[in-house]
Parts: sequence; structure tokens; C-alpha cells
Amino acid sequence: MRLAAVALGGNSLIRPKERGTAKSQIVRIDKTVSYLKPLIRKFSLVLTHGNAPQAGALLIQQEKTKRILPQMSLDTLDAMTQGELGYWIQQSVENILKKNAVTVVTRVLVKKSDSAFSHPTKPIGPYYKRKTFKGMIKEPEGWRRVVPSPKPVKIIDIKEIESLVRRNFVVIACGGGGVPVIEKNNRFVGVEAVIDKDYATQKLASQLKAETVIFLTDVDYVYCNYGKPNKKPLRRLTVKEAINYLKENQFGEGSMKPKIEASVEFLKRGGKRVLITSPEKLNLALKGKTGTVIE
Amino acid sequence: MRLAAVALGGNSLIRPKERGTAKSQIVRIDKTVSYLKPLIRKFSLVLTHGNAPQAGALLIQQEKTKRILPQMSLDTLDAMTQGELGYWIQQSVENILKKNAVTVVTRVLVKKSDSAFSHPTKPIGPYYKRKTFKGMIKEPEGWRRVVPSPKPVKIIDIKEIESLVRRNFVVIACGGGGVPVIEKNNRFVGVEAVIDKDYATQKLASQLKAETVIFLTDVDYVYCNYGKPNKKPLRRLTVKEAINYLKENQFGEGSMKPKIEASVEFLKRGGKRVLITSPEKLNLALKGKTGTVIE
Repeated sequence: MRLAAVALGGNSLIRPKERGTAKSQIVRIDKTVSYLKPLIRKFSLVLTHGNAPQAGALLIQQEKTKRILPQMSLDTLDAMTQGELGYWIQQSVENILKKNAVTVVTRVLVKKSDSAFSHPTKPIGPYYKRKTFKGMIKEPEGWRRVVPSPKPVKIIDIKEIESLVRRNFVVIACGGGGVPVIEKNNRFVGVEAVIDKDYATQKLASQLKAETVIFLTDVDYVYCNYGKPNKKPLRRLTVKEAINYLKENQFGEGSMKPKIEASVEFLKRGGKRVLITSPEKLNLALKGKTGTVIE
Repeated sequence: MRLAAVALGGNSLIRPKERGTAKSQIVRIDKTVSYLKPLIRKFSLVLTHGNAPQAGALLIQQEKTKRILPQMSLDTLDAMTQGELGYWIQQSVENILKKNAVTVVTRVLVKKSDSAFSHPTKPIGPYYKRKTFKGMIKEPEGWRRVVPSPKPVKIIDIKEIESLVRRNFVVIACGGGGVPVIEKNNRFVGVEAVIDKDYATQKLASQLKAETVIFLTDVDYVYCNYGKPNKKPLRRLTVKEAINYLKENQFGEGSMKPKIEASVEFLKRGGKRVLITSPEKLNLALKGKTGTVIE
């Protein structure tokens, strides 16, 4: 059966500014999963997802209790959110799509020599009034911790994921970009870092030889001149066109840019098609009536 | 290949009174996993584990930050600790035993009609100075929350686990007893409860038709008259003898009793052998030189 990797991002899991009770997140996930219905007739599915608000909540809880309890590092926090969100998503898939689903706690190999470790760029977690960690940055809302975001090299747990995908289970993997792990003295060791979910989705999809990648996000289309009066939805893109738009810096850092970069990489490595749209518009997009297709 | 379900309990994962940093827990897990070496030549393995100290830490962190962040219910907390401990254990198995390992976030079906929901008995989480929840109990250290501990009916994610076990991956499942879930209007819904790890291990082992269950715990043997001057290690037990000792109330609630009850159930349902010992003595026990065997 054809395989599609679907990345659930943006507001698929939690609304912005929402308090994020389990109940409200499950309602939101149920809604997003219901939009996947048209996919399950055509594809085997592997689902990835973000975890920024959920990891952010854990970071705040750890910060506030650090005098009495040890703080866990980012690799462990990612694993915790993979359990949390994986449980909610797998249950939602079974309840709504009536398909067996399984969450695989996924580790992703990164290189110790990745320049991200010497030049951390990814702001995460709560805002602070003062500079309380090394290497914080000042944002309008306050000081924020900045951590390395190394490029994923490969999905360590790929064999297990592949064996489940082949059995046609819906597999939830690479949550929050996956647990960042390096190889050291012939052992895997977790590291204090965060992997971009879109890059991890590409690696996963390429290693599984998926046919299609679908990025579900907050917008129905990829736009050029986004945020300007002459913004224009891009309905179809070739790899070459996508690369040109990237060169023009058309896409937002940490939002659309990694999706387009991941798309280009996926297609270069043998993938057939990338679709970028919102969960609500997925059904129309599959019929070619909306969304951005890169081929 | 023969299948063994191994329950990692007691001090296998964290030393008592230890602060429980990720690093110290990983060191402890590495140690425990290294004792499993003699098993991997003979058995396919499925590993279960407890999560009381880890879930306890999350409960404290949530309690202390409840004014600013929503508290997650016990089903979600269990899923989080399955991610956390599963990640550590799978990495340890690969680093030390050089076997592919995978963590499956596992849900366990319980019955809404289970009397545990009307009569909660399981004390969990931090001690409080005052009675701050409904249905707390007073222990020597302070007031403590008491939650339902329903009997597991079946492992929901059994097909996924089975397909991985058949491929000879080391599967980590049912962490903390598994996520407690009921069926309601043809949907699975998580509930505020905690499932006993030993009972869950039995269900898992029986559903997988495992040959052997191994409970790794703090003592080398099961004892009768435990804690008394005439305490006696039990080297071999039949199911009938085990039932008789249970009737005599020989075993501690929440420690040895659930293990013996789970053993009896496992053997009644077609299992061949249960071994109860400490991780340190596992190798000797496999040679018949120590530990308690129930057949």
C-alpha cells in the first residue's frame, strides 16, 4: 500500500493561547484526526507531531520545582511528550478512524560536530524577567533560553517503525522531532537539544520510502510575499521553483522555511509528492482544489 | 523462539530515597539491564516496569504549578512516564545488550464497574500536611491521595506489541501498569486510576502466550513468614502451594502479594514458569541456584 507521512503541526494539537488541559487538547486532536479520514482509504500512515506547548509546560513545571526535584534534560522531556501526545493521538485514531494505532518512542541521531551545538538558535520554554541561563536571548516578551537545533542524521528506531507500518498499523513516531541522540564510544547518548519536526519528518519519510509527505499547518497554502499586500498562494511548485523561492528568503524561519527545505530534500531522495495545507482543507486539497503541491 | 516477560520493579530503576536525576536513573537502569544478558540468548523479551517515583515527581511538579498550568490526569501521567522510562530502557538495551529495542505506549482496558472506582485503595504521590483532596488517607509521613487501582481486563495495544515481539525486537510495554482506559459509547477513554504493574504483566504475558514470567524485585526469594524470626525462603512452589500461602496472607499487599496472584493467574492460563528474584541474582536463579520458581 502507498505510504504517506503526515506531520501534525501548528494548531492541530493545541490552540494558541489555550490553557491546554488534557480534555481541550484531546478535543482538538479528535478534530484534526477526523480530517485524516480521506487518507486512510488510500494510504498507510505514519504520523509525526510537534510538542512545543507541551514541552514548554514541562519546562515551566521543572523550573518552578527545581529546588526539590531534579530537572530532566531536553531529550528526556521530548520522550515524555512523545508518550503524552502519542497516547492521545493513537486513542483518537482508533476512536475516530477505527484503525489500530501505535506510538513508538523515537530517537533521532544527530552529530556532535553539528554547528548547532556551538551556535544554539532555537528559543524554547518560558519567558524570564532576567537573564537566568547562559546564552539566553531577549524577545519582546522577556528573556528566553536558546538551545541547539541540530539536523537529524537518521531515525534510529526505523526498523521497528517500518515493521509496524508494513503491518498497516497507523504509527505515531518522531514526536516533537524525536529524542536527540549522539553516538559516543559505540553507545547512544541523549543530548540537550531540540530537533525540527519538519526535518525529522523528511528523514522518517525518506527512510521509509514513503510516497507522499503531508505537512498540516495553520495556512491553506504556501505563499510567496507572505504578510505583504502582494502575497500570492503557490498552488504547484517544482523542486527547482521551491529552491529558487528559498534563495529569495520567501519563507518564515522556523515555520514555512523548514517545511520547504524538508520537501525539497524528500523529493530529491525519491519521494513523489509533498502537500502543504491546513487540516480543515485536507479533503479539498486531496482533490486538487486547494493547498500547495510540490512535485 | 521462547518468550519471557520480565517485570522490572523495586530498585531496578531508582534507588530508594535517591533524588532521581536522569543521569542517576540511567546508571541504575544500565546496571539492571546488564543482568538481563543471560536471558537474550534463550528468550525473546518483553519488558515491563514500574513508575511510582517518576509519576510521583510529576504529581509534585503539577501540584506546585497548578495555578498557572493545568494538571494532567493519571492516565496521561502514566503515558508520560512510559515515554521517559521507555526511552531510557530501550537505549540501555541497545547500548548494553546490543539488541534492537522499542517502546510501545500501552493502554490497558479496565472496567468502569470495577469496585476499585467506588473504593479507591492505592496511595500515590506526595505527602501533604493537610487533607487537601477528597478521600485522602493519613500515613505516618502525612496525608496522601488515594486513587482507584482497577484490575486490568486486557492489553489494548496487544497486536502491535505481538508483531514487534515476533520480529524479535525487545519490546518495552505496559510501563507503570499501562494507561488505564475504559470503553464508553464504543470509544476508549482514559480514566483517573493506576493499574498494578504485576497484574498488567500477567495480562500481557498471557495474551502473548509467553512461556515464562520473571519478576525482578528487591529480594532474592519469595519468603514465608517474611519479617519474622522464622522467615523461610520458598525455592519451589506449585500453583496449589502458592494459593495456600495467599490464603494464609503470607505476602505483603502491594509488593509480593500481587506478584504471587499474577503468577497463579499466568500459570492457570497456560504459562509454564514464573521466576521471582533480584536483578543481581538473575543469572544464578536461571541456573536453579537461587530465586523462587513457581510451576
